Amino acid sequence: MNYLVTIAYDGSKFYGFQRLNDLESVQKCLEEALTKINKSDVVIKGAGRTDRGVHAYGQRISFKLNIKISTDGLKEALNSLVKPYIYVKEVLEVSDDVHARFSVKKKKYRYKINMGEYNPILTDYVYQTEYKLDIDKMKEVANLYLGVHDFRNFVAGEREDAKAIIYNIDFVMEDNILNIIFEGKSFYRYMVRNLVGMMIEVSRGKEKITKVEEMLNSNEEIYGYTAPACGLYLESIEY
Amino acid sequence: MNYLVTIAYDGSKFYGFQRLNDLESVQKCLEEALTKINKSDVVIKGAGRTDRGVHAYGQRISFKLNIKISTDGLKEALNSLVKPYIYVKEVLEVSDDVHARFSVKKKKYRYKINMGEYNPILTDYVYQTEYKLDIDKMKEVANLYLGVHDFRNFVAGEREDAKAIIYNIDFVMEDNILNIIFEGKSFYRYMVRNLVGMMIEVSRGKEKITKVEEMLNSNEEIYGYTAPACGLYLESIEY
Repeated sequence: MNYLVTIAYDGSKFYGFQRLNDLESVQKCLEEALTKINKSDVVIKGAGRTDRGVHAYGQRISFKLNIKISTDGLKEALNSLVKPYIYVKEVLEVSDDVHARFSVKKKKYRYKINMGEYNPILTDYVYQTEYKLDIDKMKEVANLYLGVHDFRNFVAGEREDAKAIIYNIDFVMEDNILNIIFEGKSFYRYMVRNLVGMMIEVSRGKEKITKVEEMLNSNEEIYGYTAPACGLYLESIEY
Repeated sequence: MNYLVTIAYDGSKFYGFQRLNDLESVQKCLEEALTKINKSDVVIKGAGRTDRGVHAYGQRISFKLNIKISTDGLKEALNSLVKPYIYVKEVLEVSDDVHARFSVKKKKYRYKINMGEYNPILTDYVYQTEYKLDIDKMKEVANLYLGVHDFRNFVAGEREDAKAIIYNIDFVMEDNILNIIFEGKSFYRYMVRNLVGMMIEVSRGKEKITKVEEMLNSNEEIYGYTAPACGLYLESIEY
């Protein structure tokens, strides 16, 4: 049977989502638990490969099991093995052709910035800066990102092209935490952190908005700025 | 010069407030930083000795320095040495007789309980339980705690007597997190966690409220329940 499972995790407790040798990755933890339940090897597919330090409220994974187990039973068995820093929120039985990554229609990411006083309890969970950030300038930069663009200057490593569509960017203030919520179809590696990075540079007056325009429209390689992993959350995946 | 300093910290990153051999305690981290700044040994006094895993928004410490340094300068120098999991919020120069612990007039503690779905990102920062908790029953228990009592059955270790006064207990719901805020003059070791522990036991139907009355009024030793450290915050200290 093919399963589609929604999980949340604290990214500060893992070396990223993807398996990398014997490091404690989210994938390793989940595959070891599933292999125990299935009594033979299980390999999972993740909707998005979050980097080290990046959190998830609604990551989705898919995998196949040989055994027969109810969705409630699987949720409970998995949680008893992967908690406390990973939590299984929902288990669905899905048709064989559903694949957590290839079937994605929409992804949401959230980036959190503390606009108030430094809070040591949030060290690993929001970006905290001493710069004064102008939210109106951030929104101006966000407007440039909307729609279809070649985001190659916002992506890790060299690329021939990195076309993607961003449907929406929302700004929500919760207490002193600014939440920037990105909705798109696909996001390349480091893309959200680089998009936020240039928002920060412009809003603190370090860079001009024209640099963002150049990064989006020029064929030249232009370096930006990568915002820290701790502020980023994979919010949800839609199929 | 004598200083009174307000600090916040993430208790999950330290072996408690108080120095214990070479373990990474909050006190050790602060004293090493202050000794570097002062260029000779500094010993600090803390208003409350939070246990391992307990957090602080407004812990206060006092200490004496030989050198002359402005309060702003001291705040900056200290923060550059103790961040990111400890943060110095305020530095005051005070008269020689001020002592962080002995001068205390009022202390506030906060206990956080997640009443919603389990959240792996809050593992070390709130108490998460699968029990259904009845807030009205919690409030009934809280009413028994108010005023002056001998709290010996709510204190770690054996004690001849443990008289204390609780001025107020407030319940504040923030999203799905129940915040229980205790105001009193002095709190003994484990006292808040034991007070919350019996609230939980009664509100989930495991114990009767008459047991709490007995614990408060009987001379016998009656065992309760200690709520986990992760939900507890030393909120503020008043002089």
